[in-house]
Amino acid sequence: MDLGILFGFLGTWVLLGWALMAGGNVFAYVDVPSIILVLGASITVVFFCFPAGNVKRIISVGKKALFHKNRPVEQLIADLVSYAELARRDGILSLESAMADIDDPFVVRGIQMAVDGSDPELIESVLNSEVENTVERHEVGKALYDALGKYAPAFGMIGTLVGLVAMLSDLSDPSQIGAGMAVALLTTLYGAVVANAIALPVADRLALRSSEEVLYKTIVIKGVMSIQSGDNPRVVEQKLRTYLPPSKAAAEAKEAA
Amino acid sequence: MDLGILFGFLGTWVLLGWALMAGGNVFAYVDVPSIILVLGASITVVFFCFPAGNVKRIISVGKKALFHKNRPVEQLIADLVSYAELARRDGILSLESAMADIDDPFVVRGIQMAVDGSDPELIESVLNSEVENTVERHEVGKALYDALGKYAPAFGMIGTLVGLVAMLSDLSDPSQIGAGMAVALLTTLYGAVVANAIALPVADRLALRSSEEVLYKTIVIKGVMSIQSGDNPRVVEQKLRTYLPPSKAAAEAKEAA
Amino acid sequence: MDLGILFGFLGTWVLLGWALMAGGNVFAYVDVPSIILVLGASITVVFFCFPAGNVKRIISVGKKALFHKNRPVEQLIADLVSYAELARRDGILSLESAMADIDDPFVVRGIQMAVDGSDPELIESVLNSEVENTVERHEVGKALYDALGKYAPAFGMIGTLVGLVAMLSDLSDPSQIGAGMAVALLTTLYGAVVANAIALPVADRLALRSSEEVLYKTIVIKGVMSIQSGDNPRVVEQKLRTYLPPSKAAAEAKEAA
Amino acid sequence: MDLGILFGFLGTWVLLGWALMAGGNVFAYVDVPSIILVLGASITVVFFCFPAGNVKRIISVGKKALFHKNRPVEQLIADLVSYAELARRDGILSLESAMADIDDPFVVRGIQMAVDGSDPELIESVLNSEVENTVERHEVGKALYDALGKYAPAFGMIGTLVGLVAMLSDLSDPSQIGAGMAVALLTTLYGAVVANAIALPVADRLALRSSEEVLYKTIVIKGVMSIQSGDNPRVVEQKLRTYLPPSKAAAEAKEAA
Amino acid sequence: MDLGILFGFLGTWVLLGWALMAGGNVFAYVDVPSIILVLGASITVVFFCFPAGNVKRIISVGKKALFHKNRPVEQLIADLVSYAELARRDGILSLESAMADIDDPFVVRGIQMAVDGSDPELIESVLNSEVENTVERHEVGKALYDALGKYAPAFGMIGTLVGLVAMLSDLSDPSQIGAGMAVALLTTLYGAVVANAIALPVADRLALRSSEEVLYKTIVIKGVMSIQSGDNPRVVEQKLRTYLPPSKAAAEAKEAA
Repeated sequence: MDLGILFGFLGTWVLLGWALMAGGNVFAYVDVPSIILVLGASITVVFFCFPAGNVKRIISVGKKALFHKNRPVEQLIADLVSYAELARRDGILSLESAMADIDDPFVVRGIQMAVDGSDPELIESVLNSEVENTVERHEVGKALYDALGKYAPAFGMIGTLVGLVAMLSDLSDPSQIGAGMAVALLTTLYGAVVANAIALPVADRLALRSSEEVLYKTIVIKGVMSIQSGDNPRVVEQKLRTYLPPSKAAAEAKEAA
Repeated sequence: MDLGILFGFLGTWVLLGWALMAGGNVFAYVDVPSIILVLGASITVVFFCFPAGNVKRIISVGKKALFHKNRPVEQLIADLVSYAELARRDGILSLESAMADIDDPFVVRGIQMAVDGSDPELIESVLNSEVENTVERHEVGKALYDALGKYAPAFGMIGTLVGLVAMLSDLSDPSQIGAGMAVALLTTLYGAVVANAIALPVADRLALRSSEEVLYKTIVIKGVMSIQSGDNPRVVEQKLRTYLPPSKAAAEAKEAA
Repeated sequence: MDLGILFGFLGTWVLLGWALMAGGNVFAYVDVPSIILVLGASITVVFFCFPAGNVKRIISVGKKALFHKNRPVEQLIADLVSYAELARRDGILSLESAMADIDDPFVVRGIQMAVDGSDPELIESVLNSEVENTVERHEVGKALYDALGKYAPAFGMIGTLVGLVAMLSDLSDPSQIGAGMAVALLTTLYGAVVANAIALPVADRLALRSSEEVLYKTIVIKGVMSIQSGDNPRVVEQKLRTYLPPSKAAAEAKEAA
Repeated sequence: MDLGILFGFLGTWVLLGWALMAGGNVFAYVDVPSIILVLGASITVVFFCFPAGNVKRIISVGKKALFHKNRPVEQLIADLVSYAELARRDGILSLESAMADIDDPFVVRGIQMAVDGSDPELIESVLNSEVENTVERHEVGKALYDALGKYAPAFGMIGTLVGLVAMLSDLSDPSQIGAGMAVALLTTLYGAVVANAIALPVADRLALRSSEEVLYKTIVIKGVMSIQSGDNPRVVEQKLRTYLPPSKAAAEAKEAA
Repeated sequence: MDLGILFGFLGTWVLLGWALMAGGNVFAYVDVPSIILVLGASITVVFFCFPAGNVKRIISVGKKALFHKNRPVEQLIADLVSYAELARRDGILSLESAMADIDDPFVVRGIQMAVDGSDPELIESVLNSEVENTVERHEVGKALYDALGKYAPAFGMIGTLVGLVAMLSDLSDPSQIGAGMAVALLTTLYGAVVANAIALPVADRLALRSSEEVLYKTIVIKGVMSIQSGDNPRVVEQKLRTYLPPSKAAAEAKEAA
């Protein structure tokens, strides 16, 4: 898991908790019916918008997107280059035995197809369709968190209007006006927190994670295609190296120099 | 009907109703003139924006989009593969008798044209133009619900301004100020509820349903074209299987293993 | 004129008027200087944004877009097919005499060019450039009404700020505070009404009307090109029928069955 | 200069001024520190966003965009046709002497290149790159005014928050509360006026002016290319006439009839 | 460093500081917990959204984007033309010794590859991929500052809601109401200042800087390709001159005349 996310997530919530306690009375911020309304309606409305299957799948996608970490791209390239060397030296069938040690199922599937002697076009289309599926899955996940980030503040505002109307309808006890307004404002606060400290950052993260996965899988595809066509390992390395971000490429260039 | 939608729709409204009753006096939230203004003007303004024909057609489209459920894609593929087997074994004309058991008119139309020996290009263009029509119909439906989600809060705000001006023009009885403001806020509440608990979720749903329908119909078209060109049923299955989302494809792969 | 528009327009304004009268004192909502500010500045700022020629032309475009109604597409297709039959039977020159009965100048122009024996490519490019002009004219019209829908609420808010500052600068007579705020809010109300009950619905309508016109004129162009190339009337009908929306196409198919 | 702009600009500001005076005390709306904050910060932040060179160039671009008026397109076409006639009758070199009377440098440059016998492709690419430069210059200008229209209200709101905090921190003299809030609101008012009565209309205008310039220069390029290739003047006229908006084309067609 | 940025940045902050002091008591605007909440949560949430690596790299990118200044494009073109002359006169290998005086590593890399006799296509693809990397790096940087500009006001609003609830929950001492609201509003003020006086202008600047860099590097690539193919220096100059903005091109044309 990316330590930055842990820092980002915990840091945001610690600061929010600290801000609540700074007021002296943290219980003033807890109103169970308001929590049920905002959280509940934000979730039910998401079931209204999306097929139940998606909503369920999305939690796993979200968790995976936040906690799953691909191997560093440099290491992936090094591995693919070593497979290319092996295939060049001992024939492509020799990769069969090497596959037991690979734990990325996507790499395994690609190399298995190359070992099986499948048609290169078929390999590329099968692997590419998996990339498209990954992108679509991430887009569905992002759409769900974006919906949560849109509806949570909306139901927060609805809750506040409900509370204000209740308070204004009965002003007989002026000493209750302040407390009434405080409770009314809580739903707006909950909605803003759900949106800005959970839903929208996760949606942003999913967008980024999606392009990372695409980069990762694109490198695997190019590598497998190169291995299958029997490219020289140095050429494989050169081809894959062009996908590295510039800072890493520069660092490697320095080491090479 | 998708149970998730039922849960989402009822859950959202039960929570809203519960929130209103939590205030103790649910009648404080009912103001008939405000309801007429917000609901009425939201609907009339939609007639102002869209041709009456669309507005009428849209209710049926909306209902169909929410309640209609395509057969699962896996079953569709299995059916198309069985038709391909039949056509391979007994000749394409043998599908004539099988059609009585098919209840999806889109599949029937495609197979009928194949049985009639129509030109493949004609079949594809006729079926594709129906897909385009489906997309356009869903887009018109989504546009209408988006308009409702835009104008309902706007007329809610207009209603609140009307109420505030009325209240502020006559402050002679201070005890009425609270009640006046409460009533004024109700239209904003109604507008927000119409938008966020009806119009916008339906619009989101229609966008999704549209891409589901396109996927479904694309599979039908590919299947019919494959059947007509006399493809091997296993090839038909492979081609159609690439349209499955990855989780289902994986599940099937596991079963196959 | 589309009865739906009349219903939509009148319905919206009757509901607004009824809401104003519900307050008991409709004159509380009339403040002539506020009306002059919001309406006046919304109009002058549109002259600031757009060339005077456009602003003038737009009123006619807007009126035409709202009140002009093309013949139903089905009838247009029937007419074009009957011209194709006439041309097939008696030669294309026989359309010369038929043109006196056609009252759509776009159809007349197309058929006149076909009768004159103009080059097909020239006919298509001249008619297409007229379609592009139509689209551009509608886009300019929509841009103007969108501008009105953007600036009217903005000047409404400016008017309210002006009124609030005036009221707050002189609080010497507390009994005037309510009335002052009421008047200040009126400009916001006017701005919201101009935007949501006039400008934005007209802009939405123009967008739709534009695509209707494009559909209508595309059918005319395809029809004229078919007539000129001497297509069989049945083929002309089949070609043009593909432009019908699916519900109408289905209805016709049923009748045919 | 377009009279419509003058009417639009002056009309908007006269209405605003009249609204301020309607309150009886125009000085209530003048707070020099607030003006300095909103105007000053809106301008400095634009220097923060854009290179100083752009900011300087933009004022001239803005002025030119508002006050410069191209010759009417009809007259441009007539001129280009007359050059085509001259070139046809007396040879293209005869345009050399005619150029002294042309005051549009873009037309002069194009004809000079044609007279010099430059390669047609070179002429077209040089003139096209100038059109691209014009578009880019207008886009930079529009971006700057859009930025002004975005930051002026933002700093207006910041000013209001500063004023509200100052007022709320010291409520010892209740009679000053109204005056304090009035002054606080002034920055929001200034920001809204700068955005809606200056920056955004100018940005809208620049977008339109840009497409006008592109149309104008496109006609010049087509005309010069036609003259250079020795087209018949009537053909030149026909080609250029297709760029006229439909209302003008119709008017000319009527005159021709 | 661009003096305009310095003026823009300092000017904005001097005006803000002056506005705070104008209230008489600058300490009223300093509330350490509020600063920690808004600044802290805006930063932690950015770590939540973006990989820690990006967040770190971005500070350097941001600094470079604000302070780094490319040589003027005219001078770059003059340099490239002089290299072309040298290569033409003394052979391309003579550039080897000239490279010691070039301090732009991008130019050095391009010329080194040309001197090494690399394949032109390879040179172009290597340099182009560096341009793409530059663009992507700037886009990531802009995305981060845009996120800061989105979340800072959101957490400002959350802080204000927290403060309002605290104040409204305990109205026992009315003399504290004003001070409580003032403190509550401070977080909204901080959020608006972070967004509008730091994050959004930097994001705007990065967008511009990105297109400047692309222009600069595109000129280098075209120049290196021209030098490698042995183009006449005058031709090199003509080619590169087409990338100059029109005002500079015109100035040079005047000097040339």
